[in-house]
Amino acid sequence: MRKSAILYLCLAVFLPSLLAAAEPLALMPVPEKMTMAEGQYRFDASFTLAVEGQAHPRLYSGATRMLRRLSGRTGLFMTQDVITPQTRVEKPGLIIRCQRPGKVALGEDESYELAISPAGVELRCVTDLGGLHGLETLLQLLQADEKGFFFPALSIQDKPRFPWRGLMIDVCRHWLPMEVVKRNLDGMAAVKMNVLHLHLSEDQGFRIESKLYPKLHQLGSDGFYYTQAEIKTIIAYADERGIRVYPEFDMPGHTTAWFIGHPELASAPGPYTIERTWGVMDPTMDPTKESTYRLLDRFLGEMAALFPDPYLHIGGDENSGKQWDANPAIQAFMKKNNIRDNHSLQAYFNSRLLKIVTKHGKRMVGWDEILHPSMPKNIVIHSWRGPDSLVQAARRGYQGILSNGYYIDLIQPASYHYLIDPVRPDAQLTPEEQARILGGEATSWAELVTPETVDSRIWPRTAVIAERLWSPASVRDLDDMYTRMEVISRQLEELNLTHIRNYEMMLRRLANQQETAPLRVFTDVVEPLKIYKRHSQGVTYYSYSPYTRVVDAARPESMTARSFARKVEAFLKAPSGPEGGEILNQLALWQENHARLLQTMAKAPAIREMESLSRDLADLAAAGLQAGEAIQEGRKLGGEWGAVQKELIERAKKPRGQTELMVVEPIARLIQAAQ
Amino acid sequence: MRKSAILYLCLAVFLPSLLAAAEPLALMPVPEKMTMAEGQYRFDASFTLAVEGQAHPRLYSGATRMLRRLSGRTGLFMTQDVITPQTRVEKPGLIIRCQRPGKVALGEDESYELAISPAGVELRCVTDLGGLHGLETLLQLLQADEKGFFFPALSIQDKPRFPWRGLMIDVCRHWLPMEVVKRNLDGMAAVKMNVLHLHLSEDQGFRIESKLYPKLHQLGSDGFYYTQAEIKTIIAYADERGIRVYPEFDMPGHTTAWFIGHPELASAPGPYTIERTWGVMDPTMDPTKESTYRLLDRFLGEMAALFPDPYLHIGGDENSGKQWDANPAIQAFMKKNNIRDNHSLQAYFNSRLLKIVTKHGKRMVGWDEILHPSMPKNIVIHSWRGPDSLVQAARRGYQGILSNGYYIDLIQPASYHYLIDPVRPDAQLTPEEQARILGGEATSWAELVTPETVDSRIWPRTAVIAERLWSPASVRDLDDMYTRMEVISRQLEELNLTHIRNYEMMLRRLANQQETAPLRVFTDVVEPLKIYKRHSQGVTYYSYSPYTRVVDAARPESMTARSFARKVEAFLKAPSGPEGGEILNQLALWQENHARLLQTMAKAPAIREMESLSRDLADLAAAGLQAGEAIQEGRKLGGEWGAVQKELIERAKKPRGQTELMVVEPIARLIQAAQ
Repeated sequence: MRKSAILYLCLAVFLPSLLAAAEPLALMPVPEKMTMAEGQYRFDASFTLAVEGQAHPRLYSGATRMLRRLSGRTGLFMTQDVITPQTRVEKPGLIIRCQRPGKVALGEDESYELAISPAGVELRCVTDLGGLHGLETLLQLLQADEKGFFFPALSIQDKPRFPWRGLMIDVCRHWLPMEVVKRNLDGMAAVKMNVLHLHLSEDQGFRIESKLYPKLHQLGSDGFYYTQAEIKTIIAYADERGIRVYPEFDMPGHTTAWFIGHPELASAPGPYTIERTWGVMDPTMDPTKESTYRLLDRFLGEMAALFPDPYLHIGGDENSGKQWDANPAIQAFMKKNNIRDNHSLQAYFNSRLLKIVTKHGKRMVGWDEILHPSMPKNIVIHSWRGPDSLVQAARRGYQGILSNGYYIDLIQPASYHYLIDPVRPDAQLTPEEQARILGGEATSWAELVTPETVDSRIWPRTAVIAERLWSPASVRDLDDMYTRMEVISRQLEELNLTHIRNYEMMLRRLANQQETAPLRVFTDVVEPLKIYKRHSQGVTYYSYSPYTRVVDAARPESMTARSFARKVEAFLKAPSGPEGGEILNQLALWQENHARLLQTMAKAPAIREMESLSRDLADLAAAGLQAGEAIQEGRKLGGEWGAVQKELIERAKKPRGQTELMVVEPIARLIQAAQ
Repeated sequence: MRKSAILYLCLAVFLPSLLAAAEPLALMPVPEKMTMAEGQYRFDASFTLAVEGQAHPRLYSGATRMLRRLSGRTGLFMTQDVITPQTRVEKPGLIIRCQRPGKVALGEDESYELAISPAGVELRCVTDLGGLHGLETLLQLLQADEKGFFFPALSIQDKPRFPWRGLMIDVCRHWLPMEVVKRNLDGMAAVKMNVLHLHLSEDQGFRIESKLYPKLHQLGSDGFYYTQAEIKTIIAYADERGIRVYPEFDMPGHTTAWFIGHPELASAPGPYTIERTWGVMDPTMDPTKESTYRLLDRFLGEMAALFPDPYLHIGGDENSGKQWDANPAIQAFMKKNNIRDNHSLQAYFNSRLLKIVTKHGKRMVGWDEILHPSMPKNIVIHSWRGPDSLVQAARRGYQGILSNGYYIDLIQPASYHYLIDPVRPDAQLTPEEQARILGGEATSWAELVTPETVDSRIWPRTAVIAERLWSPASVRDLDDMYTRMEVISRQLEELNLTHIRNYEMMLRRLANQQETAPLRVFTDVVEPLKIYKRHSQGVTYYSYSPYTRVVDAARPESMTARSFARKVEAFLKAPSGPEGGEILNQLALWQENHARLLQTMAKAPAIREMESLSRDLADLAAAGLQAGEAIQEGRKLGGEWGAVQKELIERAKKPRGQTELMVVEPIARLIQAAQ
């Protein structure tokens, strides 16, 4: 790790001089080792590629996809047909040399080496999984200048820091059809993630077909579930991209949707209906009945056969315990078996479940709560509580993966997620203990997303989590990360991801007209409320509520606000610098925007909830303008003026429409500096 | 028809006075009869709906989808759960009264009546198919003003003019995955189309799984085909929306992809590979071998069982005849059986095919070429040659549908398609003959589209074809159509259609940066070359060529150019009117744009092919500015100036990058008027 960090530093030093004319490289995740060289490999429509050695078929289809994406980005009419083991090419621009077919499994070799010289590109890999990663790196290396397209000469030796780099997608709270999963698999592959964790059962939906217990999906899903054929399609699609897929069936809580068809599983009689609200619900499986385990045995056996991956997640989180407390038979069972509390009863349930999961050839994964002294060491702890619990688990001999800090549904900035490391730097683990920390998973919980918005909640922020799980721990420069993230975000669009394009579409619908500029100027600087605050604003969200409002269109992280704040800092350091004019122009735009937005609102009632926040933005911008001009002119603004602005600032901080204005702080900085 | 036309005229008269404060109504297709009334039905989040009478389950799911879309557009937190036959609602805002369950079949009753009063909405229909149409009309009627959302009070009695209102999607030339078909089915339902014609086999791909002859799809598709489970999903999805789905297996030509796995079907020995280029190819089925019919019998039997619709399309177009001419056995067969030419041999093939199709319970549909005196009257002629052939067929007793004039892949303007009527006004058909003209189909041939661009080639222009096939023949006002089309186009976005949103996305990729304004200003006024001209520009397109260039991003119809041309006409009539300033501003923008676009090009080689066309636009705009100012000032510009501009105009008319500049004509008008 240390060695690679030094190489990375060298890169940072050499890059500007070597690539003066080109764009800075935007690789994400940053490779372990990279050395720049002189020159470029320039190519045109005659570019072809060849695969040598022994590879799984996925490398051939992956190489074909890479060629099409290269052609699509460059507009070059490359004429190479589908690449197969029979393909013979003279003078290929890219040679891929692969040692052996890979297996999409935890711990498989994913390393690759890329050597680009003016004569061509060579990609070497032990397995095709590394080969696919190398192809993604190569696509990220595509550069252009006045003369055309090229790859910069360099050499890269790369491999992941952690073997488990996952994205969990909750397809239960809001149903996400297969094409959403597919395009996100493409996004994952682009940033070298290798695990898709499908959260398949919940209070709000049972999202997979069971041929043994069809009432589960038939009555628990409103008709929105994956057929087994679709699951096989998803697994095959993921395997083609070097990604494992494993399922989660959250138990014993979060199980309302099971009980519509099978109320006998529950700890209270029912009847049950599909849950439409969010939170921790009471319905819980009855862990004292043998019939519960008989059904789970058969059902998990069916699922174990469907999913080839050796891991299976049993959830285990957020059991309220209320149904257990209220059920005399359960209480009697606990007394009889000397089970002293609900945590122990759940441990009993887990130990029974573990036998079933093990019998069906799987290793059990569960959330923090499953960690109990009675559990054997071959389970995997999935931590939503934090790195501490992961470190403790590793010390006690358990493998673990981190999701605390990677809850992308909580709308925190990329910088927050980026700096969280699965291995706390001060953890002082032995190498053996450290190896038990397998990696992590970004979690896309789906209370507040729909197929229309989910991509924008996953991307581009998940790309920086992917980097954290792949790149050396020392790669932590936030400015550099944001610069690269913006480029990668645009590249992800070619994989059908809608995280950028649906923004304007949602604004058009909200504005109720083609002209969206005033709404966009406003929405560009608001963000949805973070953590769980969106639920405590006097609004009750149901699964069928509209997720089409300004708060849903707004991006998790306002790049406009971030850029503005940085310009304000520069301006305050050097008021005569170039940022002064940019800031004043921006403030003037915001000041004038409110009147324009009012015109849009006249025919768009759906955005009227933002009227007062838009007015606050205009008022604040006006004050910021005064402050900025005073600072430029070296004037100070009087005490009364400051008092008025202070009130305005406090007002502008208040959330409206479950969003908050992200430029209050930098404008307040200007106002303060002017006094 | 006459009566409704008069009512429509009344509407046009009454509308402005009754709805002075609101937007003009944007219904597409225009209903048969509509009468405006006083007032509005205003609603809020408490809006609910109820279904009464006997309906197929599709009306309940359709009503639920309508409610969610209404909630999505308005941002209102409507709380009604999934609507089922058990749903009981007090005081519903909308009551749907349905007489009987409908059947998704040709000729089913699709009529509905909508009555909106300040007290609420009533939707009456004979079948749920009419009910679904009425719900789409209601969604199009959604209006907003300062006070909130409402539906205008009115009454509508509506039914289609033609029973066959289709869209043909070619999924062979370029593969289009299931989600593309699904979202286009939603678009079709939104404009009341009721037939999806899937073009499933071609020289370039065999796109459906055959369990009896798996080599067809396994070797003929590059792995891109619909499984039978997916076909069932598509059919069910369409049925939910009142849309029939029927397949086309184009024979005996357009069949290369069959022959990779089954060369014995061909009239020449092979071997064959999947065709990668476009045009009329030679490979043709051998109509003289009994083995051909044995395979077709079993294969079509398999497909007949998969598709419940009673129609099956056998293609029959564009057989080059070369393989037949070159095959001695075929020549001997013709001689022996007294078959005098290839057209007669194809008729023999068709008659054999007809027996097979009939045996499997289907009615045969085929392109114009299948019309031969030997054919019985129960086949359906699908006309790509024109309304004349349709009229002739109707006179001779054949049913027919029109696609000539509805070839949306040829990138002609909406106005062109809109004015083409399946029944030529001067045809002088008897009512019986006229009834044989069942309707028409827009055809989305896929040589030049990909999943990324196909929606923009289908929508919004297909909506005006849908109107032609539904609304009274007298509804032909082009300005009114364009005004409504723009609104409907935006509404179609909520159905996941990407026809608008992918434009900016493609520009971002081309520009190789977030800032796309200069590229957009330019691309806004170019259109792809029309008819088949794009193929004759010195560029050879393959199936794997990049369809990501400016020509692919450019919309089929530049609304900017259309609007500009109209302003020029107004300006020339009244040079002191408000259009003068708008025109000059627009011209100034174009003039300045070239320098900006050059900056974008510096890092975007893919758009450099447009450099000279962008320069021509700038030069032309400069000349237009001079002309416009001269006209405003009442000056005339001298003869030499005109000669220079004439040369410039001719230069600017030349296609570049397979696109053409759409503002040459109106600027030339300005230049001419200034001389």
